[in-house]
Amino acid sequence: MPLEGIDGLELPAAADMHVHLRDGEMTELVVPTIRQGGVNTVFVMPNLVPPVTSVRHALDYQSRLQELEPNVTFLMSLYLHKNITPDTVKEAKAHGIAGIKSYPHGVTTNSHQGVVSYEEFYPVFEEMERQDMVLNIHGEVPSTAHEDITVLNAEEAFLPTLLDLHRRFPKLRIILEHCTSAAAIKAVNQCGPNVAGTITAHHIFMTVDSWAGDPHCFCKPVAKLPSDRRALLRTVVSGDPKFFLGTDSAPHAAKSKRADKVAAGVFTQPFAVGLVIDALEEGLEMGVLQAKDVTKEKLEGFLSGYGRAFYKLPEEAKERIVVKKGTATIPEILVSEDGGIEVVPFRRGKITWGVEWKQ
Amino acid sequence: MPLEGIDGLELPAAADMHVHLRDGEMTELVVPTIRQGGVNTVFVMPNLVPPVTSVRHALDYQSRLQELEPNVTFLMSLYLHKNITPDTVKEAKAHGIAGIKSYPHGVTTNSHQGVVSYEEFYPVFEEMERQDMVLNIHGEVPSTAHEDITVLNAEEAFLPTLLDLHRRFPKLRIILEHCTSAAAIKAVNQCGPNVAGTITAHHIFMTVDSWAGDPHCFCKPVAKLPSDRRALLRTVVSGDPKFFLGTDSAPHAAKSKRADKVAAGVFTQPFAVGLVIDALEEGLEMGVLQAKDVTKEKLEGFLSGYGRAFYKLPEEAKERIVVKKGTATIPEILVSEDGGIEVVPFRRGKITWGVEWKQ
Repeated sequence: MPLEGIDGLELPAAADMHVHLRDGEMTELVVPTIRQGGVNTVFVMPNLVPPVTSVRHALDYQSRLQELEPNVTFLMSLYLHKNITPDTVKEAKAHGIAGIKSYPHGVTTNSHQGVVSYEEFYPVFEEMERQDMVLNIHGEVPSTAHEDITVLNAEEAFLPTLLDLHRRFPKLRIILEHCTSAAAIKAVNQCGPNVAGTITAHHIFMTVDSWAGDPHCFCKPVAKLPSDRRALLRTVVSGDPKFFLGTDSAPHAAKSKRADKVAAGVFTQPFAVGLVIDALEEGLEMGVLQAKDVTKEKLEGFLSGYGRAFYKLPEEAKERIVVKKGTATIPEILVSEDGGIEVVPFRRGKITWGVEWKQ
Repeated sequence: MPLEGIDGLELPAAADMHVHLRDGEMTELVVPTIRQGGVNTVFVMPNLVPPVTSVRHALDYQSRLQELEPNVTFLMSLYLHKNITPDTVKEAKAHGIAGIKSYPHGVTTNSHQGVVSYEEFYPVFEEMERQDMVLNIHGEVPSTAHEDITVLNAEEAFLPTLLDLHRRFPKLRIILEHCTSAAAIKAVNQCGPNVAGTITAHHIFMTVDSWAGDPHCFCKPVAKLPSDRRALLRTVVSGDPKFFLGTDSAPHAAKSKRADKVAAGVFTQPFAVGLVIDALEEGLEMGVLQAKDVTKEKLEGFLSGYGRAFYKLPEEAKERIVVKKGTATIPEILVSEDGGIEVVPFRRGKITWGVEWKQ
C-alpha cells in the first residue's frame, strides 16, 4: 500500500501561500475552513471588488479576517494597479504587508483592473526590491487568436516576461503563482533563488479533461496536459525549496459555477493538506512517483517550510498536525449559516486524508 | 465590406448531414427549426436512449419526424452496436436507411453503448461495402492519461484507425464526422474519394478558449487551437467536395448545460446556414480568408451539393433559399410550448444572416 508510512505522520502546520478569502458572507463561510485543511498561515489574494490597492484597505481586510479566525496568520497583499506607487510600497512594508500581486488584464476572476504593461511599474518594482517585498505574479498573457495564444499556452507565453523581470530586478523576490505547466517549472528553475513557484492541490490532480464539462474544475490558469500534471507531481516531491504550496483555493457561489459564464476557480481550502497527499497517492498509483519519493522531509518542505522560508517568516511553525488516511469526507456542498451562499468543493463526495491538530 | 456579393444570394436549400433531433418534447421543439436554418435535408443521428439499433426503430423514428415536418427529408442512421449484423445492414439498405454511425465507447452524449473495438464489426463493414451504405464515424479515442491522450488530441489519435478502416474497406463510404483539427482534414484528404468529412458551423467559430468557462460552447469533439480553426475555415471554402456541412446541432436542456456535469453539444439548428456565413465573415475579418475565396459555387457545394452527392441523393435540391445579411437575431433561449424544455442556442443574442425560402 503506497504512502502507508505517511498515515499518522506528524507534520508542521501547513502554510498556504495563495488563498482567496473573498469578502462578506463568503469570507465568513470560508475562513473557518482554513485550519480544517491543516493550515495556520495563508497569503491572502487582493482581488476583491474593488481590488485591495491601498495599505489601509489591506489592513482593514486583515482585521476582519483575524477577527473571524484568530488562530491563523494572514499575510496580506496589494493588487498591482496604477494607484500603487513607490511610496505605497514603503508604506506597505512598514505595515507588514507581505507582497504585491500582479494580475494581467482580463485573464481571470476580477482581473479587469489588472496590468496591461509591466514597464510602467518598474519604479514600483525597484522600490519593492529595496524593501525586500514579494512580487506575486499570475503568469498568463491574454489570449490572442492571431498569435495562437489560448488558455493552453497563455502561461508558457508569459514565461519570457518572468525571465525578463528577474533579469531587470535580480534581487526582487518573485513568485510565479499556481504553476500549471512543465514549462513554468523549468522557467522558475532557470532563475536564481529569489524566484519561486507555488503549486496548487488541484493542478496536481487535473488535466484539460478534468475541466472539459466540469465547471467545478474550471480555473485559471487551466489544468493542462498529462505531461504537465506529471511534472507538477514530481516537483511537489522534488525537495526543491523553490516550490511550495499555494492552493489558489477560490470559492465561488455554486450558481456562478452552474451558469452561462462559469466563474474561474476551484475551492480546496477545507482539505488543502489532505488533497495534496491524495494527489501524491494518485501519482504513485499512476507510476509517476515512487514510494521513496514521498518522504516526511519533502512533505514538510512543500507544505510548510519552503513557503515560510521564502516569505522570511520569523520562525518555523510551532503548531503541529497529524495526517490520517481516509478519515475525512469532502461534503457535496458547503452552505453559509443563513443558506444564502453555497460553494461546491473540489472532489466533492470523495474520501480524503483528515487532519488533526496536536494539542 | 466583406461578403457583400453574398447578400441576397439565391442558393439551393442546404443539406445538414449531421443533426441530433432527440426524442419526445425536445424533438417537437427542434424539428420545426430545421427549415428556419435554410435546410431541407438532414442526416439524423441515432444516439437516442435506447440507441437506434434496429431498422424498425429507425423507421418509426423517421415517421415521427416526418409527421412533425413533412417538408424535410430525413435520412436515417443506425447506431453501430453488437445488435447490428450483416443481415441488419441488408435490411437497412432495403428500407432506405442511409448510414450507420459509430461512436467510440464513452466519448460523448449517449455513447456508453458505443464501440470498444472495430475488429468485431469487420463483417458488418464488409456488408456495408457491398450494400454501398455510409459509415459515419465519431472519430475520437477515449482519453488515457498514461498515453497522453486528452480531449485535445483524441481526434488526431483516432486518425490511424480511419486510415486503417479505409485500407481494409477501400470501397466503403466513410464520413469522418465533425472534423475539428487540421490533422483530421489532412487525413481525410489522404484517403480516396470514398472518404469525406463533415464540418460544423460552430467549430469554424471556436477554439479551446470558447468552451473554457462557457457550457454552451462545450461539445465533443471539443474545439481546438486557432490553427485548427483556420484550417477548418479554409476547408469550407476550398471547393473540395470531400467536405460538407454537418452541423452536429445537439440540443440539450439548458439545465443540463448549467450543471455540475455539462452535457456535450452545441445547438445551431435554427441558424445553420446563417452561422456558416457569419463564420466566413469572421474568417475574412481575421485575414484567414480572402473575399475571392467565398464564391457562390463554393457555398453551394459546401452547404448543399457535396453532401447530397456523397450520399448519392437522387437529385440536387430544387428548393431554393435566399440569404440576407443581418436579418435574423438569435434568441436568448428556445422554449417548448408548455415551457417544459428550454434550449440555449449558439451565439445567443447575436445578429446573423437570415434565410428566406423562394416560392
